[in-house]
Amino acid sequence: MPDIDFGTWRARVDAALAAALPDSSHAPQRLHAAMHHAATNGGKRMRPLLVYAAGTAFGADIAKLDAPAVAVELIHAYSLVHDDLPAMDDDALRRGKPTVHIAFDEATAILAGDALQSLAFDVLAHAPLDADARVAMLAELATASGMRGMCGGQALDIDATGGAAISVAELERLHAMKTGALLRASVRLGAIAAGVDFPTQARLDVFADALGLAFQVRDDLLDVEGDSASLGKTAGKDAAQRKATFPALLGLDATRARLAALSDAMRDALAPFGSQTDALAALGRAAVERKH
Amino acid sequence: MPDIDFGTWRARVDAALAAALPDSSHAPQRLHAAMHHAATNGGKRMRPLLVYAAGTAFGADIAKLDAPAVAVELIHAYSLVHDDLPAMDDDALRRGKPTVHIAFDEATAILAGDALQSLAFDVLAHAPLDADARVAMLAELATASGMRGMCGGQALDIDATGGAAISVAELERLHAMKTGALLRASVRLGAIAAGVDFPTQARLDVFADALGLAFQVRDDLLDVEGDSASLGKTAGKDAAQRKATFPALLGLDATRARLAALSDAMRDALAPFGSQTDALAALGRAAVERKH
Repeated sequence: MPDIDFGTWRARVDAALAAALPDSSHAPQRLHAAMHHAATNGGKRMRPLLVYAAGTAFGADIAKLDAPAVAVELIHAYSLVHDDLPAMDDDALRRGKPTVHIAFDEATAILAGDALQSLAFDVLAHAPLDADARVAMLAELATASGMRGMCGGQALDIDATGGAAISVAELERLHAMKTGALLRASVRLGAIAAGVDFPTQARLDVFADALGLAFQVRDDLLDVEGDSASLGKTAGKDAAQRKATFPALLGLDATRARLAALSDAMRDALAPFGSQTDALAALGRAAVERKH
Repeated sequence: MPDIDFGTWRARVDAALAAALPDSSHAPQRLHAAMHHAATNGGKRMRPLLVYAAGTAFGADIAKLDAPAVAVELIHAYSLVHDDLPAMDDDALRRGKPTVHIAFDEATAILAGDALQSLAFDVLAHAPLDADARVAMLAELATASGMRGMCGGQALDIDATGGAAISVAELERLHAMKTGALLRASVRLGAIAAGVDFPTQARLDVFADALGLAFQVRDDLLDVEGDSASLGKTAGKDAAQRKATFPALLGLDATRARLAALSDAMRDALAPFGSQTDALAALGRAAVERKH
């Protein structure tokens, strides 16, 4: 990933996360430690970076972006904790480290995920932003997280695992909800802090939707092409679990062509903004080119 | 429970819940059906009734109370789904009906709980209230639900189960977080909709805190004195699981005396408001006198 302001932004969100998370020396220590484990595990911070990139591109004061950046990362972190549970994907490793239910226990992992979700809304509700902006962000994040977004997409994914027939359109809808909704919300939260107009918001939505889908198409390709060591998780797992994927439905060549088309769509969506949206464009390229 | 407006209010919140919940005929059907199962299971609707009682006592338009009433019930419903999971309390029955992970499956129960939590914030964020009121309610509900409230209390409860030493003060803190925080938030959300002044809010907090503790003390007594049929759940389970309870720590007589004292505290807190808070007072008595 090109080093625009990403190092600075990662440091900002990490500091803001540390301030939002509970003190692990206070009871209930086990819950608090599990929340830290989940939220500070060396992730790429893609969603917070999208908040900062979208917000600063359109003139938001960066101090207004910390709370939404923290909130989207907390939602992401909670979703990983619950997705990794034995009843869900049953993953023991996440980015090369034990998952929360392995490092702690299942009850603590369920609760830590629940508390991370609450904390995301708590941080936003108490953010140093005017009430209208906070409400707009809270509405956006809640819808993106729930049955019409991430949770709904995860449920569609479970329904589609094990070999049930699914079309490309259905797979795209699944991913638009499961991962796309939170990525789109990340861009929108930054845009809300900047107070962008409707045409700008519409272009950013097109960019974010292409990015969300590209992110998942790349993920599917990495599961086929990558190795477990560089991925930090088990490669080839999708095929083993008979998950619906783009390579399985389209073949490898058509999947790679789809990724290239999404890359073009992102570039076109941002074209009118010129260098103003360089950071967003770089994040788009990073989603397409990432190795893990 | 005396029939002040409770029947009308229950019908209101049930209608508002039905409007907020997803259409079970649309994909992902299993998730949607599980959310319905969790939220429409014949509960007493204590938390929504507290919202309506507190709000109408101080002049709130009842139309402003539907969204907060739905939100607190959705948080309560999600917490029951997750508490019942095999890794948590491992309960197969809830109010005489199969719990969500029994009626569906564990993955669906985890996701349905997650989506019900998101939906609570979604409903509040989109409520027909001015932005300041919505933000105040969202902040209150998020804090009451998370690590400083319900989730934190549940973690303390897990830490205290199995016979670890715990003092009465620690047990009270546990319950103030686990069940008290959401009951207090219910009263506060109604009060926010009514725009009460600070001294009124302070009195309502005293009432709500006494009610929350009384609710739990009564719960502990019912587990000792009640039978499974009228409880709709397994009696005697606390002792079998070596849970910390008031009867275990104080003995039965002192526990009953504590409940009477909490009843007095509720009455004293509401005394200055006279008949204006009759519905709240009735809900307080119902918590103390309930048989299940």
